[in-house]
Amino acid sequence: MPYIPLEEHLPGVTGLLEYRKDTAAPIRELTQILLRGPSTLTEGERELIATIVSHRNQCTFCVTAHTAVANIFLEEEKTSTRIKEDIGTAPVSDKMKALLTIASQVQESGKNVTTESIQKAKDAGATDMEIHDTVLIAALFCLYNRYVDGLSTVTPTDPEFYKGLGQRLKDHGYHRLPQGYDHLKKSNQ
Amino acid sequence: MPYIPLEEHLPGVTGLLEYRKDTAAPIRELTQILLRGPSTLTEGERELIATIVSHRNQCTFCVTAHTAVANIFLEEEKTSTRIKEDIGTAPVSDKMKALLTIASQVQESGKNVTTESIQKAKDAGATDMEIHDTVLIAALFCLYNRYVDGLSTVTPTDPEFYKGLGQRLKDHGYHRLPQGYDHLKKSNQ
Repeated sequence: MPYIPLEEHLPGVTGLLEYRKDTAAPIRELTQILLRGPSTLTEGERELIATIVSHRNQCTFCVTAHTAVANIFLEEEKTSTRIKEDIGTAPVSDKMKALLTIASQVQESGKNVTTESIQKAKDAGATDMEIHDTVLIAALFCLYNRYVDGLSTVTPTDPEFYKGLGQRLKDHGYHRLPQGYDHLKKSNQ
Repeated sequence: MPYIPLEEHLPGVTGLLEYRKDTAAPIRELTQILLRGPSTLTEGERELIATIVSHRNQCTFCVTAHTAVANIFLEEEKTSTRIKEDIGTAPVSDKMKALLTIASQVQESGKNVTTESIQKAKDAGATDMEIHDTVLIAALFCLYNRYVDGLSTVTPTDPEFYKGLGQRLKDHGYHRLPQGYDHLKKSNQ
């Protein structure tokens, strides 16, 4: 049960983003820019960064949601599973291995990022902006994971919930949907 | 030396916020709302939350900067020093002790916040919004600390730098100052 009164039909971060809409707006905007804005990293790659950090923070709501949306972008489920098991042997490029390693270091502490891990990313072709964005996405999900678990929000157990949320995050990004949108969408189908 | 090319005269987070201005804008806005917007917590109390989290993340730039601005708001230096040593015996209200304890738990993991620590805050008179804001401020500084250290930004050692930054954050908050502002300000004095 959440530590503060959140709307019961809005689990995980969704209830928090409705609880205080003025702080939610810049959080949504930052996430939209980083995960959906112009980038030389694909949306799927950026969702994998969100996934690995949430996985290592053991935030079930976030890791399940971002695994779902990564799977939709990548059109397969193997990669998201494999990066959570072992980045080194996962079916991603050397550049992504290096960036996911940096993200994992950031999850523990910014101080854990090493000159060697940065050099490895640069040697594999990562640009300065890709390194910047990897660190900031990882830091942002350290915020999200703490926000979601620190207020003890509800974690749905039905896999269908996350498939639906993943599809919505793929189709509409991190913007707030207009009120009644879900209802209208359903009635139009 | 920073891992990415940042302007040399802008240490810590200041160089990062200039490096990518589109992501900086919502980060600044979120910080301004949480630390300077309307709240039943004083600006000094909110800066103490930023301070304790940055201290526990060992982010020297952030802890020194937010200690400086907390001291300016509180008009003394004892409280910020004492909370870093031991929240339990620091000269703050029972409500603030409870909220700083929650912030310290969030610093480690959102999962570390307990029903007991929340109840203690509520018993000491903390509102739901104060608990919400404490968790979100703590989570936000987990983002900042990782952003600053994860990209190996420069940490000035001159105490005067932080006094100046603290005064600016007290006088102008977290908005971006117009270009040339510092120069104009200096030449008008």
